[in-house]
Amino acid sequence: MPGILSDLRIVEVSAFIAAPLGGMTLAQLGAEVIRIDPLGGNIDIGRWPLAPDGTSLYWASLNKAKRSVCLALNTPQGQELARALICAPGENAGTLLTNLPASGWMSFSALSQHRADLIMLRLTGNADGSGAVDYTVNCASGFPLATGHGGAPVNHVLPAWDIAAGLYLATGLLAAERTRRRSGHGQEVTLALSDVMLATVANLGYLADVQVNNAVRPPLGNDLYGAFGRDFRTADGRHIMLAAISNRQWRAIGKATGLAARLALGGPLMEADLDTEGGRFAARHAICAVLEPWFASRTLAEIRTALDGSGVLWGPYQDFGQLVHEDPRCSLKNPIFATIDQPGVGQIMANTAPLGFSVDGRVPPQAAPRLGEDTEAVLSEILLISSLEYGRLRDQKLVA
Amino acid sequence: MPGILSDLRIVEVSAFIAAPLGGMTLAQLGAEVIRIDPLGGNIDIGRWPLAPDGTSLYWASLNKAKRSVCLALNTPQGQELARALICAPGENAGTLLTNLPASGWMSFSALSQHRADLIMLRLTGNADGSGAVDYTVNCASGFPLATGHGGAPVNHVLPAWDIAAGLYLATGLLAAERTRRRSGHGQEVTLALSDVMLATVANLGYLADVQVNNAVRPPLGNDLYGAFGRDFRTADGRHIMLAAISNRQWRAIGKATGLAARLALGGPLMEADLDTEGGRFAARHAICAVLEPWFASRTLAEIRTALDGSGVLWGPYQDFGQLVHEDPRCSLKNPIFATIDQPGVGQIMANTAPLGFSVDGRVPPQAAPRLGEDTEAVLSEILLISSLEYGRLRDQKLVA
Repeated sequence: MPGILSDLRIVEVSAFIAAPLGGMTLAQLGAEVIRIDPLGGNIDIGRWPLAPDGTSLYWASLNKAKRSVCLALNTPQGQELARALICAPGENAGTLLTNLPASGWMSFSALSQHRADLIMLRLTGNADGSGAVDYTVNCASGFPLATGHGGAPVNHVLPAWDIAAGLYLATGLLAAERTRRRSGHGQEVTLALSDVMLATVANLGYLADVQVNNAVRPPLGNDLYGAFGRDFRTADGRHIMLAAISNRQWRAIGKATGLAARLALGGPLMEADLDTEGGRFAARHAICAVLEPWFASRTLAEIRTALDGSGVLWGPYQDFGQLVHEDPRCSLKNPIFATIDQPGVGQIMANTAPLGFSVDGRVPPQAAPRLGEDTEAVLSEILLISSLEYGRLRDQKLVA
Repeated sequence: MPGILSDLRIVEVSAFIAAPLGGMTLAQLGAEVIRIDPLGGNIDIGRWPLAPDGTSLYWASLNKAKRSVCLALNTPQGQELARALICAPGENAGTLLTNLPASGWMSFSALSQHRADLIMLRLTGNADGSGAVDYTVNCASGFPLATGHGGAPVNHVLPAWDIAAGLYLATGLLAAERTRRRSGHGQEVTLALSDVMLATVANLGYLADVQVNNAVRPPLGNDLYGAFGRDFRTADGRHIMLAAISNRQWRAIGKATGLAARLALGGPLMEADLDTEGGRFAARHAICAVLEPWFASRTLAEIRTALDGSGVLWGPYQDFGQLVHEDPRCSLKNPIFATIDQPGVGQIMANTAPLGFSVDGRVPPQAAPRLGEDTEAVLSEILLISSLEYGRLRDQKLVA
């Protein structure tokens, strides 16, 4: 397989979003990522949404470009096979990524007895090992109570903490592998989903605002905080998002709509300096009062004609169907997409990683494996298990 | 500086969230990250929220653990100094991270003439170089129209696409540096914010659901899709999030609330199999009707007593103030936090990266620099510019 990480092998024992996304990110950069599941699959094998034949589109989407191995992980023999795959020799092997409770045979101390320079990335809910998932981390983050118009929490639908965690895992794995290559030592790398949330909230200045100003960001609907931006309804019932971060973008709005002179009056009206982000935030209701009728009297197509190429920062709201059917970026014209043949699903447009490398190129989009599709091949290649021996393991229900 | 990346140097020319977060993530793993800004700072230097003295808490939070260099980037001499820092020799140097328009002297083709194995990571809005920011990518993603209860888009407040992009940049940089170390070649690594969004929407199965089932996920309020989970109001006006992914977590809810027998009736009532995630989703209104009074008649403290340690997956909603004041994970007991002395701000609790390394440890939280704080030291260390020469550059207003 081509790709910038094509000589790297990672074993993944995972479920759900974060750890599978971490592994898939590396697989989509060319790494050989072997996902080991118990016979019949892990707890996420049937997660919604499903294809008509029952195949999980969720699982298929989060395990693309991987190899799938099924072992009887509840038996000593299955555990021994998994351990042999995880601890197989080779300077580019010996890396485990997991979000399962890593105790017993799968603990770092147990595994590192079989390979001293093992790198093991372990994602937990909380740092103390107690359970937490994206939903229960999100409610603690402050964001649902700052979303919408207040009164009740509004959960975002994107599993943002899982996504950040998956990408931290990919970063942490490459950092640890870089160091092993230079100094020879492996190690256990730990990440708690709640720490991903806490670090992110802190990185964005929210914790500092509470500590320094005793300020708790209130819900502002779809208004940007500290700058100008909001949604507007169009004449044909669509919505668009409009924002201005720079002064250039702000002036472009006035020019493209022909409302520059009236917008400028919003400054003295609200005693705000509209040449600053903060001033535009302070005057946002006056600004929106001028802009609203302009958008409300035009269709999305008319708005697009007026704003595209004008330097205005804007975009239409799209539901998932409109994203697929109307957005040219979400099409085969975009090199991150290609048509794949997904087992159980059929021909669909699917993606590779969004990173492009000018020399090493981009690994083309690849399907997810069928569950257990690679068990025999992986055991043959890495553990040199013959097809005769494999048949015996299969008869004993140790592999599938 | 300790840390797993302590021998790596990265030059960052950036603004806002994604690229600064990418650089900070590496800095918080020990890399020497030199952020170069124009004199007076880049466009994000004054972004809200602000400390009482006008220092941007946003900037300070997103540039921790970096070094700050200010150069007159609008002059040939300032550009030459920047180029010399970017292209300085050393196998661990020669890496540029930017989200600014990389044209002219800062293009990959121009810079790589000064260092053939340069690694340059370049974040753009859209892949064609046209502008897009988190807000205008988000509106296209499908999520705002699937958030809340429908009728109008609801933007999430977390800049989730910027965060994912920053972490993809960190991953891409380490992948490219790994390859340079092995094969000697540098390259340009490109990432578009809209591709981060598209890849993520695809990774989560939303694009497949549209293509295969022609299904567009509708807004479900705070209900989980395809499983059981929702918010509940407490007797003291707080809200909690409750979820059950596994059967074990589902049974724990019945046991901890004493409502197992009544909850079980929801299965036949709704003709749903409550031992499956999909069955619990189908029966969620009946389930919630049973649970609502239980939560509504208890305070958060009483709920905590009943649920903690019970195996139930839950958590309280917290605003940013409650997160700081009530959540023990958001305190100095958590090793990702420490008290730092932030210039212009004072003593505050701030964070390092959430990744922990069992051998290489964790870089303690560090403050962001004052703007230009390290200009003289960096020019002296890397370009061997004497203090006499530095004084001359300062008098010419080429550095600050």
